Amino acid sequence: MSAHPGPERRFRPLPHTQVTIADRFWAPRLEVNRRVTLAAEYRQCKQTGRIDAFRLDWQPGREPVPHIFWDSDVAKWVEAASYSLATHPDQALAGMLQEVVDLIVAAQQPDGYLNVHFTVVEPEKRWSNLRGWHELYSAGHLIEAAVAHHQATGSRALLDCLCRYADYIGTVFGTRPGQKRGYCGHEEIELALVRLYRATGERRYLDLATYFVNERGQKPCYFAQEAQARGEQPGDDFSTLQAHLPVREQTEVVGHAVRAMYLYSAMADLAGETRDESLLAACRRLWDNLTLRRMYVTGGIGSWRRNEGFTSDYDLPNETAYAETCAAIGLVFWAHRMLQLECDGRYADVMERALYNGVVSGVSLDGTRFFYENPLASLGDHHRQDWFRCACCPPNLARLLASLGQYVYMVSEDSLAVHLYVQGEAQGEVAGVPVAIRQETDYPWQGQADLTLEPASPVDFTLRLRMPAWCDDWKLWVNGRQTEVPVEAGYSVISRTWQPGDRVKVLMGMPAARIVAHPAVAPDRGLIALQRGPLVYCLEDVDHEVPVQAIALPRQAWLTPTWQPDLLGGVMVLETEEALAPAPGAWDRALYQSAKAVPMQPARLRAVPYCTWDNREPGGMVVWLREAPTGR
Amino acid sequence: MSAHPGPERRFRPLPHTQVTIADRFWAPRLEVNRRVTLAAEYRQCKQTGRIDAFRLDWQPGREPVPHIFWDSDVAKWVEAASYSLATHPDQALAGMLQEVVDLIVAAQQPDGYLNVHFTVVEPEKRWSNLRGWHELYSAGHLIEAAVAHHQATGSRALLDCLCRYADYIGTVFGTRPGQKRGYCGHEEIELALVRLYRATGERRYLDLATYFVNERGQKPCYFAQEAQARGEQPGDDFSTLQAHLPVREQTEVVGHAVRAMYLYSAMADLAGETRDESLLAACRRLWDNLTLRRMYVTGGIGSWRRNEGFTSDYDLPNETAYAETCAAIGLVFWAHRMLQLECDGRYADVMERALYNGVVSGVSLDGTRFFYENPLASLGDHHRQDWFRCACCPPNLARLLASLGQYVYMVSEDSLAVHLYVQGEAQGEVAGVPVAIRQETDYPWQGQADLTLEPASPVDFTLRLRMPAWCDDWKLWVNGRQTEVPVEAGYSVISRTWQPGDRVKVLMGMPAARIVAHPAVAPDRGLIALQRGPLVYCLEDVDHEVPVQAIALPRQAWLTPTWQPDLLGGVMVLETEEALAPAPGAWDRALYQSAKAVPMQPARLRAVPYCTWDNREPGGMVVWLREAPTGR
Repeated sequence: MSAHPGPERRFRPLPHTQVTIADRFWAPRLEVNRRVTLAAEYRQCKQTGRIDAFRLDWQPGREPVPHIFWDSDVAKWVEAASYSLATHPDQALAGMLQEVVDLIVAAQQPDGYLNVHFTVVEPEKRWSNLRGWHELYSAGHLIEAAVAHHQATGSRALLDCLCRYADYIGTVFGTRPGQKRGYCGHEEIELALVRLYRATGERRYLDLATYFVNERGQKPCYFAQEAQARGEQPGDDFSTLQAHLPVREQTEVVGHAVRAMYLYSAMADLAGETRDESLLAACRRLWDNLTLRRMYVTGGIGSWRRNEGFTSDYDLPNETAYAETCAAIGLVFWAHRMLQLECDGRYADVMERALYNGVVSGVSLDGTRFFYENPLASLGDHHRQDWFRCACCPPNLARLLASLGQYVYMVSEDSLAVHLYVQGEAQGEVAGVPVAIRQETDYPWQGQADLTLEPASPVDFTLRLRMPAWCDDWKLWVNGRQTEVPVEAGYSVISRTWQPGDRVKVLMGMPAARIVAHPAVAPDRGLIALQRGPLVYCLEDVDHEVPVQAIALPRQAWLTPTWQPDLLGGVMVLETEEALAPAPGAWDRALYQSAKAVPMQPARLRAVPYCTWDNREPGGMVVWLREAPTGR
Repeated sequence: MSAHPGPERRFRPLPHTQVTIADRFWAPRLEVNRRVTLAAEYRQCKQTGRIDAFRLDWQPGREPVPHIFWDSDVAKWVEAASYSLATHPDQALAGMLQEVVDLIVAAQQPDGYLNVHFTVVEPEKRWSNLRGWHELYSAGHLIEAAVAHHQATGSRALLDCLCRYADYIGTVFGTRPGQKRGYCGHEEIELALVRLYRATGERRYLDLATYFVNERGQKPCYFAQEAQARGEQPGDDFSTLQAHLPVREQTEVVGHAVRAMYLYSAMADLAGETRDESLLAACRRLWDNLTLRRMYVTGGIGSWRRNEGFTSDYDLPNETAYAETCAAIGLVFWAHRMLQLECDGRYADVMERALYNGVVSGVSLDGTRFFYENPLASLGDHHRQDWFRCACCPPNLARLLASLGQYVYMVSEDSLAVHLYVQGEAQGEVAGVPVAIRQETDYPWQGQADLTLEPASPVDFTLRLRMPAWCDDWKLWVNGRQTEVPVEAGYSVISRTWQPGDRVKVLMGMPAARIVAHPAVAPDRGLIALQRGPLVYCLEDVDHEVPVQAIALPRQAWLTPTWQPDLLGGVMVLETEEALAPAPGAWDRALYQSAKAVPMQPARLRAVPYCTWDNREPGGMVVWLREAPTGR
């Protein structure tokens, strides 16, 4: 037990450098990310001027004008490339990375400041609009990049540069006389400073993160003051920026979804680092509000285009879902941090839901095209693009995928937690003893996983195996013997002396499930979603003879999972011949008619994983589909 | 047969003065309209300054400032009061009417102009913003009022006044040199001028209506030109005003719903008066687009608050439905005019749907409170109000209800059409012979109607009895003998020599029907609406132990119609004990879960007519409800 009260970061992720992924779902995507996406994103950053902007040679009148948040796109690419190089050396990629890092370092100003736009375009406006201009947000991404770069390459060049920037930021912001009591309109610097603290051991970065989080939402609002200083209307609604209340008083997830996730991630980090129970309590409240009232079944979040974020409880339209890829990624970040404080399936279930659905839907199977928005229904007019003017999502995906290994396992002083079932190997140290872990599984396509543990010597610890919430029927074997074990907060708990070669097998029943939404979610009322294991499915027009909106699935229809090796890179589809659709002409001259007057006829249904949609010819798509009442 | 080609106004409504209504559904509402609503609306118009504004004694700085469309509210009240007095003499009401008419007449300017705002507030702006300022719209309502007042009282005072105004308008607008080639941003003057033509026989009013309709949507757009003349941006989207294309080229109902209905009504009128096949063809196209793709099951139209109108095909959200009361009334007007050209059930079915649902929902049972918007679902936060700053709906309802009798019957040279089943009596003339008609029926509560025809002498004509589209099972008796008769365009056709006392009985099966929407209507997918006869039903929280959003109705559950004499003024409710609802706690800690994991328990369901909702304590309401799959 801890000597101190308050929450503790008891569980540390095994870093991605110690985890290999060799499955049929993720491994091909990670390879595409390494081989295709990273280079494609470099080219985009190069061609759009984002990289060369760090040369600081922009002149007034020249196009394009370095945008206020270009730096962050490049920073996320640096972070992604660093993760990739740490596990997969690649001379070409290393060369690109070095070029970019050198440019960034050279762009630092004598006082430590490092931001292209506010150095060459509007230097007089430095720090004058924290609400809208993303300076600290970009700084945060550069810091994350620097930490990743240092950990991947051992080089301190970028890390030292960003420490200087962080130190300079620490002189500008704070509560001391002459300092600005500001914080960023787009959260990110907070969690980045925690990472910088962990990478350097320098407490001042943690303190600065704490300052930024604590200052948020205090009255009078800094954003109003700085607006008045610019001679503008101060405004009075700061909820888009989660600055409507001090963070410990917040009870509802509001505003811009990505910002919210980055803030809550930092709050979770700080709860653990500073043993702050009130921050953890706020996180738990916000988590419940998000995951019980404001999250799509795909793990997508943010239902409104206008604020790129949250609206009200249960307001989850499908066609117009915003569900920004970055927001689902942010949700993974937050869940991962909550898991470090509390090994609770409620976090891992959502992390898995987002990863397998609303996150990975963001990139095409060939790694070159991206969704910014991830709606749950489409009339065929929503497609991935190869880049965006606001290009936050592609490099965010790249950095997540390149570091995916870190989400699989965590270790505490006396336990090893398995959060995700992914075939591959890992190296950790539990209770002072090195332990090699091997997972053999065809997850998410099959529900069996075989774990082999190879401690360097026999060792007592607790193995925590996540029992996914989607599964209501599982069995467990230890060294071939079926075993009943306690379940704590969604994890099977096996405490024993582990011997080299010990095997644990878990068998999770993985039927195709019909999912319903809370009755208050109006757009899903009367509809079902199909889910098998962690994967949410959808129907695409390309697989059907009638528009998918018209297909109805009887409750008794049996859905057969069928492996299709040549479809979408190899997927398990769900199929039935027992679906129904209106007979041709049934709706030719009617907008409403008696249900019993609509002739229905059998229809084939083939559902594919949501994350693979829009990889073939364009057409309609639905996640939520009609059920057919009996006898129709 | 007509000697001229082209459409003809073959069917003339029996005016409301020749039709009595003595049923259990409408008669109480008409009495409330006469006894309560007309006086309440007079008081509102008086208290808000709308009536006294006609004194033209407003002075700058005084509040309230006469609004640009106040005149139209008063005009609609004059029209309503006139209709009422024509059938139900009432000295107090006659006194109020005389006062108002005198004020209006006295407000006319020497040149014939008659508009309070642009006489006393901004006289220099007369006719300078036809797009936005409703001058011709208000003129149209004054003309309708004048025609009604003349027909009710015999007085020519208001009619002569409005003829002078119309004559003046005819000098200002047109294609002759020096005239403005403008037309109104809010249609109304067009149909009003047709009425004025019919009331006076003066062809110039028909020509002016024709000019306004034909000019609409011509390029270059007048609205752009007048904006430029005011030094403003011309804009380039005139679809809100149905001025994006010449009317004969329009194929989709667009823009502001009320404006659209008034325009199409005028187009139908002109098609008949001018024998213009191209106008009728446009009306038919627009009718199909509206009623097959853009209409709520209640007959409400206009799905978007922002333009108070139409969006795209099948976009019919329920909670946020705009469905303005005036728009449903406008739909009745249009349908009624189409029926005068073509005795086709497609028009009468929609007219009935709107009248019994989306129109009459607009007023509370006590006649004092009004809906502007008529959504099809509510979380309990939508309620009627006793007046509106923009008060178009209350007097529009009043004039419709006060003249409701005219929608029941039409006569042509050789036929009598029965469009609506309403208990009461009527006097008409068919084939030159006076005919008294008596309907005995408990419609809409029961599907039997007994008609007795009393021609002054035996006479040959065709009786056209509407067979509602909601009914798929009906029988017909003539003088006690069951008879098979042909059905033409939704009407049973009985041609014979009618003798005094001839009786026709029609029995329409009227089960509680489960209605489904076209599969492309996303918000209704997987849901059903309940309809019995012409009445669409809804569930209100006040009748249920669980929120109505959570209730699911199995297909096999039998809905029992039960007469409740003390509920909502006497209504037939639909009831079952076989509905289902989630057991308490089923959704306490879940936003999504497997359908088979949700414990369901029996729930009572009581549906009430949609038009009677929000007459008791506030709460949630749904029209579209879940079906429960078998065994759940």
